[in-house]
Amino acid sequence: MLSEDDLIAKYFAPIAGPAGLGLRDDAAAFTPAPGHDVVVTTDAIVAGVHFLADDVSDDIARKALRVNLSDLAAKGAAPLGFVLALALPAGTNAEWLAGFAAGLGEDAAHFGLPLIGGDTVKTPGPLTISVTALGQVPQGRMVRRTGAEPGDILYVSGTIGDAALGLRLRLGEKRDAFWQGRLAPAARDFLVARFLRPQPRMALAASLLENAHGAMDVSDGLVGDLTKMLKVSGLGANVRLDQIPLSSSARAAIALVPELFETALTGGDDYEILCSVAPARVSAFEAGAAAANVAVTRIGVADSSGGRAAVFLDASGKPRHFVQDSYSHF
Amino acid sequence: MLSEDDLIAKYFAPIAGPAGLGLRDDAAAFTPAPGHDVVVTTDAIVAGVHFLADDVSDDIARKALRVNLSDLAAKGAAPLGFVLALALPAGTNAEWLAGFAAGLGEDAAHFGLPLIGGDTVKTPGPLTISVTALGQVPQGRMVRRTGAEPGDILYVSGTIGDAALGLRLRLGEKRDAFWQGRLAPAARDFLVARFLRPQPRMALAASLLENAHGAMDVSDGLVGDLTKMLKVSGLGANVRLDQIPLSSSARAAIALVPELFETALTGGDDYEILCSVAPARVSAFEAGAAAANVAVTRIGVADSSGGRAAVFLDASGKPRHFVQDSYSHF
Repeated sequence: MLSEDDLIAKYFAPIAGPAGLGLRDDAAAFTPAPGHDVVVTTDAIVAGVHFLADDVSDDIARKALRVNLSDLAAKGAAPLGFVLALALPAGTNAEWLAGFAAGLGEDAAHFGLPLIGGDTVKTPGPLTISVTALGQVPQGRMVRRTGAEPGDILYVSGTIGDAALGLRLRLGEKRDAFWQGRLAPAARDFLVARFLRPQPRMALAASLLENAHGAMDVSDGLVGDLTKMLKVSGLGANVRLDQIPLSSSARAAIALVPELFETALTGGDDYEILCSVAPARVSAFEAGAAAANVAVTRIGVADSSGGRAAVFLDASGKPRHFVQDSYSHF
Repeated sequence: MLSEDDLIAKYFAPIAGPAGLGLRDDAAAFTPAPGHDVVVTTDAIVAGVHFLADDVSDDIARKALRVNLSDLAAKGAAPLGFVLALALPAGTNAEWLAGFAAGLGEDAAHFGLPLIGGDTVKTPGPLTISVTALGQVPQGRMVRRTGAEPGDILYVSGTIGDAALGLRLRLGEKRDAFWQGRLAPAARDFLVARFLRPQPRMALAASLLENAHGAMDVSDGLVGDLTKMLKVSGLGANVRLDQIPLSSSARAAIALVPELFETALTGGDDYEILCSVAPARVSAFEAGAAAANVAVTRIGVADSSGGRAAVFLDASGKPRHFVQDSYSHF
């Protein structure tokens, strides 16, 4: 196996940004724009917990980066750079590393978030990847999770539940053979891809910064994350379940097994944006989202009845309860 | 076991700084001082690789933080804050977590580096702790590893080799019974403490910023790290082995078994500062170090013969070679 220095020089220095100083220093330095705050977020993913050990390394690298990009997007932040702490199991081979670096480098370039530093260590355990992403917002303007106000319209981007169903397809357990066998191959591929390669909504960041009171990314399931956001803002909301945006692939799966609707809403790994927008900013927000080519859907209105957080209503107006609010990796 | 949210609320929110927003958001925001660059560094430590799984959690937390603080110090940076990605094995108990949070909180307060964010995940493998530390320096002024120039005086802070000997004591292997049994208890305790609780040289940062051309922290052994620093600067140096600063405890161990001198110089975990200072800045640097109460020792002079990097000379002027330049965790 290569030494740490050789491994960095071979695989990671070629994809590093200028602030990374060729990854030959112990630290990186960058100059935030004047009048801006630095936004920092960190997310770790572990083989066998957040992804499967036999996922291809290109996808694993992208996922590690994208779950962090998703947080920057939700905060309205423009990307600055990231550092990577990589704990590699013994026997990680050159092909795996080359794929990992290629996926990481492509995503870093595509999303404008250069690699600026890192640490590579060995582990007797599973592959563990910690990314810390840095971004910037005009001073005092980071969009907070706690910012929602009564009367705000609640929005979610994209479609919900694809990744949770994609994970079930990826696992291919016997209990799921019925619906998985009947789903069209294109639908299966779409859902699995949504699990393997989340789409961070960077394009929505500017409109969130301009228009949203509060925002977070949906990573642990919409039901639990919306409940969380309302709770920290001291608010409640009625959410019509038939208004939650679903892809045609997810609809097809749910048509086969209606219980999968609960999986879709509580299963996690969506990496969509949940946000609250004051009525006066609604048209500007929607116009910004349209210009960014990101679908956004109204799912409810925040109100001041904080005690009950989110109430999910079916088409007949009856509240629906979920066995488990959110997917807990923990 | 607690949910991730409860765990954060109970153990980590109480020790978080204001930029961390009570650790209830997906990200933190901070405002660097005008005219400053942000310095970022990340280091991960893994149970069984960088520390022993049965080290007390208070010490483990401090070590995770201090190895990163040491990088900030070497870069001349003033601390801003840190984020923590913590991968916890199943069955991590409340007592362990309480000790971890207590050690982390005390060090964060002591070194002025507040916790501002993090991620807690479970792992089927060993405890893995990734810290990303953020600091600031006046724009363009980060002290680089590559900055040494011919004629610069090379300095190292503190004493070298204590932690490497401390690890051997901590392991207590049979092959070491001879010297470990004969070492005074106070010397044993000192060396083990140097392994468990590195002393990041934050107090030296200001003098490095003002006076050093190049600097790095010594984490993988002085011989390898000096070779690395000279190599990236295209320089060489003669280093007199009898000038390398050793503690009286390390001297006592080496007096019992002379081969331990090699362990001391190549064994790693020193977390001292290695730097190069132009002759004109030498007295200012030494005065700054004295004012900061950090011992610094001249170990050689950098010269332009880059091809040979560092040559280590014994008291008679003969070059000495080392079996392994540096301790490789990798």
